[in-house]
Amino acid sequence: MAAVEGCELCASGGSAAWCEVVADDRLRIVRVLDAPDFPAFYRVIWRSHVAELSDLADDDRRHCLDAVVAVERALRAVLAPTKVNLATLGNVVPHLHWHVIARFAWDSHFPQPIWGARQREPQPTAAERLGGAMIKLDGSVRAAFAALGGLR
Amino acid sequence: MAAVEGCELCASGGSAAWCEVVADDRLRIVRVLDAPDFPAFYRVIWRSHVAELSDLADDDRRHCLDAVVAVERALRAVLAPTKVNLATLGNVVPHLHWHVIARFAWDSHFPQPIWGARQREPQPTAAERLGGAMIKLDGSVRAAFAALGGLR
Repeated sequence: MAAVEGCELCASGGSAAWCEVVADDRLRIVRVLDAPDFPAFYRVIWRSHVAELSDLADDDRRHCLDAVVAVERALRAVLAPTKVNLATLGNVVPHLHWHVIARFAWDSHFPQPIWGARQREPQPTAAERLGGAMIKLDGSVRAAFAALGGLR
Repeated sequence: MAAVEGCELCASGGSAAWCEVVADDRLRIVRVLDAPDFPAFYRVIWRSHVAELSDLADDDRRHCLDAVVAVERALRAVLAPTKVNLATLGNVVPHLHWHVIARFAWDSHFPQPIWGARQREPQPTAAERLGGAMIKLDGSVRAAFAALGGLR
């Protein structure tokens, strides 16, 4: 499907809101930079402009979900989080993208969803606790994605 | 895995919080009854007590996700919602379950996630708008699940 004008996820360039970690011809995996409470927050962004997961053909849908699971595996292997949260909402930007977020019992919103009510001000902060692991984590995401056979 | 004492999703009986719509030996699809703002809200609950999607073997994971997509297809076919929201969080109840929710531009929280800030008091209410469709919708969920070959 052609790019949709005004859709921020159809724009092909970089974004101050995330850095691209790995990608292939169908999807991009990016790490979110504008959610300081959640440093270990990735998005799997489908390249074509489709709104819903069920818009994808079977093989594409499985590839998309395998990428989500690859990120989850990397988060678990490197950080051993209390829980991984997965969601595709798209109410604001209806272009298929998945949120994959490592959650910790100490984090600002746990056990609420990250979109729920703030529970506390973590000390040390999330960045202080997790920032050192991000380069390793990005590498682990790339390796988990490569294990799918999808690495370009 | 054996049932875990105290886990509400390991309990095999019914629940006042939902009604079972269809199930097989691996999962149950239930309609949520205790979220009056969101009548078209289903959960896909994995029977075994695993916490994360990536705890499942490949075939089980695909079956679970196919069931999620079946519910999404039924919601779209019957209600043509503004958006479908999919999420597996499990911060409170770490037993794998997916939320599959039809969202509408008029609903109480749109475009916020259902866990976010309330945006409005819909008039007519969500129950008034959608309540009549629920029997048809349950049937459509059953049919979509049967199309997976998973109907017991």
